[in-house]
Amino acid sequence: MPTLQDVAREAGVSKMTVSNVLNGRRDRVSPATIARVMEVVGRLGYVPNATARSLSARRSNIVALAFPGCDSGGVESLMNPHDSVFLGVVESHVTKAGLYLMAHSVTSVESTADSLRSWNVDGAIFLGTRADEVAALQAAYDAPMVFIDNHGTSPHISNVGIEDRLGGHLAGRRLIEAGHRRIGFVGPRFDEPGVVRERHAGFVQALAEAGLELRPEHVVRCNASFDAAVAVAQQVLAAPQRPTAVFATADIIAAGLLKGFARAGCPVPDEMSIIGFDDLEVARHVTPEITTLHQDIPGKARAAVEVLLAQLAQWPAVRSERRVLGVSLVERGSVGPPPASVR
Amino acid sequence: MPTLQDVAREAGVSKMTVSNVLNGRRDRVSPATIARVMEVVGRLGYVPNATARSLSARRSNIVALAFPGCDSGGVESLMNPHDSVFLGVVESHVTKAGLYLMAHSVTSVESTADSLRSWNVDGAIFLGTRADEVAALQAAYDAPMVFIDNHGTSPHISNVGIEDRLGGHLAGRRLIEAGHRRIGFVGPRFDEPGVVRERHAGFVQALAEAGLELRPEHVVRCNASFDAAVAVAQQVLAAPQRPTAVFATADIIAAGLLKGFARAGCPVPDEMSIIGFDDLEVARHVTPEITTLHQDIPGKARAAVEVLLAQLAQWPAVRSERRVLGVSLVERGSVGPPPASVR
Repeated sequence: MPTLQDVAREAGVSKMTVSNVLNGRRDRVSPATIARVMEVVGRLGYVPNATARSLSARRSNIVALAFPGCDSGGVESLMNPHDSVFLGVVESHVTKAGLYLMAHSVTSVESTADSLRSWNVDGAIFLGTRADEVAALQAAYDAPMVFIDNHGTSPHISNVGIEDRLGGHLAGRRLIEAGHRRIGFVGPRFDEPGVVRERHAGFVQALAEAGLELRPEHVVRCNASFDAAVAVAQQVLAAPQRPTAVFATADIIAAGLLKGFARAGCPVPDEMSIIGFDDLEVARHVTPEITTLHQDIPGKARAAVEVLLAQLAQWPAVRSERRVLGVSLVERGSVGPPPASVR
Repeated sequence: MPTLQDVAREAGVSKMTVSNVLNGRRDRVSPATIARVMEVVGRLGYVPNATARSLSARRSNIVALAFPGCDSGGVESLMNPHDSVFLGVVESHVTKAGLYLMAHSVTSVESTADSLRSWNVDGAIFLGTRADEVAALQAAYDAPMVFIDNHGTSPHISNVGIEDRLGGHLAGRRLIEAGHRRIGFVGPRFDEPGVVRERHAGFVQALAEAGLELRPEHVVRCNASFDAAVAVAQQVLAAPQRPTAVFATADIIAAGLLKGFARAGCPVPDEMSIIGFDDLEVARHVTPEITTLHQDIPGKARAAVEVLLAQLAQWPAVRSERRVLGVSLVERGSVGPPPASVR
């Protein structure tokens, strides 16, 4: 365990300065020094005996919402529409319950656990954690935790999610029913359990039920970014035996593909069908509007707060709870029959 | 000043229950009772002697970001894209400075001040406050405050904003230079000082410089909502001597108008030009992409944190600081010459 002395040495300041920074007496410490001290604190994993630690026996009335932070390239965290709607609704319910919401971007399990400890938060809701991070977070901080959209298999986890696999299945079936036989898949990598893997599994199952298979050359990797999707549209079109329809695992990808296909002179839905996922606002902004799988993001946020409050009421007894919200197909304008040339 | 007794009577519970709720001993209090007690506390303006009050002589290391909360119809707060990008960047810089971020939706000046007090926050950044709320907030809580996009005239306010008036002027000039003479304005009401009033003023000035006037029948009120904008597109088209171009005070309005015009068989930019404001992602999602005024939202968030940290370092001395970030025209595809029929 690093000591205050270690931090002071590494930051090149006195122990008193470190103590001042960590105990809120920052009047005579320059912002640059504060930043340096905190950087060292984070890097060494020092857990300060900070102001709030004196409260550790009590409840803090603070709930944390942890969302995915900087990407590995160090780009500042910018919330996506799903996460921001989720945060807005969580804040509203947390406030109604007489609690306060701390917003925290996760860059590592360690720094997140330190933040939870420093403010002795009563509980936390986690967006966007990988399945393998759950146990580490639970081990690092002892409080009720509710995970969102986590598909880890631990029995000791409270999770609120949606029918991702069913959604993928519905997407596949919708395209098959429209007459498509060569159907592509566009989405992020899914080496680990998670929503993308589930949506993919449901989709592949629907294809299999119709005697179809997802050809490797019709699987295109794409992060959940509009620009990335615009770019990979070319890849979809250049595939051997080009697909006549694609399932995009997120609406923002579907919207980017729509633009990329249009630029390439391949109009949707006449020459190419697209089905998305999430039913975010972007699905209705574009033309044609995107046929997609609706998920109830405000309902998910509400459920997350309910589960967390129930756990707080029982704490330190823990009864993990899983809630799975439904999904439904929303018909819009991005799915049509295959072009006549391949029918 | 309301007392604990007042709260207990009004909520129909014992003083002990109120005390338990306010001091974090919520194990044996039902969520419904907690909600009721907090509602009464908020309504009566009771300031609890809560857990954290014992820390009041010290810094808390917490910074609040207050954003607009529920609308008057009680709809849950859903952050708009501007606010969520802003929050993401603020969180990242606040964390780098070794501080914590509390996210708080503002429903009233009173409840916000209570929240700041309850956690003894070191300072706060306010999104979306009206000019007349500044003095009330400053009077209600004694800490550094930085306002965003506030156009109030108080000299004792720290504010980070953008060149809204210049942006409106550039928008007007761009449409005039494209050859338009009948130009409409679509945006929210602006009875009070604020960004919409500024953008409108700059726009009207550009028109006046070209010997044009903004006719009252070419001013269409529209909240910053996609659906509202789709609906008011009809109103623009039905106006006497229909405009050939419109300035929308927000990209989300411009995107909705684009769809509304398309549905009415009035293609953009062939029959109608649109210029937006903000340069949010939606401006690039739609087709044609929207010509708009770019503002640097991450830069604004970074500046807000810098100003707040500078004030924290000086506190309790206060030197208010105003920063105004530039705007720039982004050419895309939604502005063209007026249709031949009116040239």
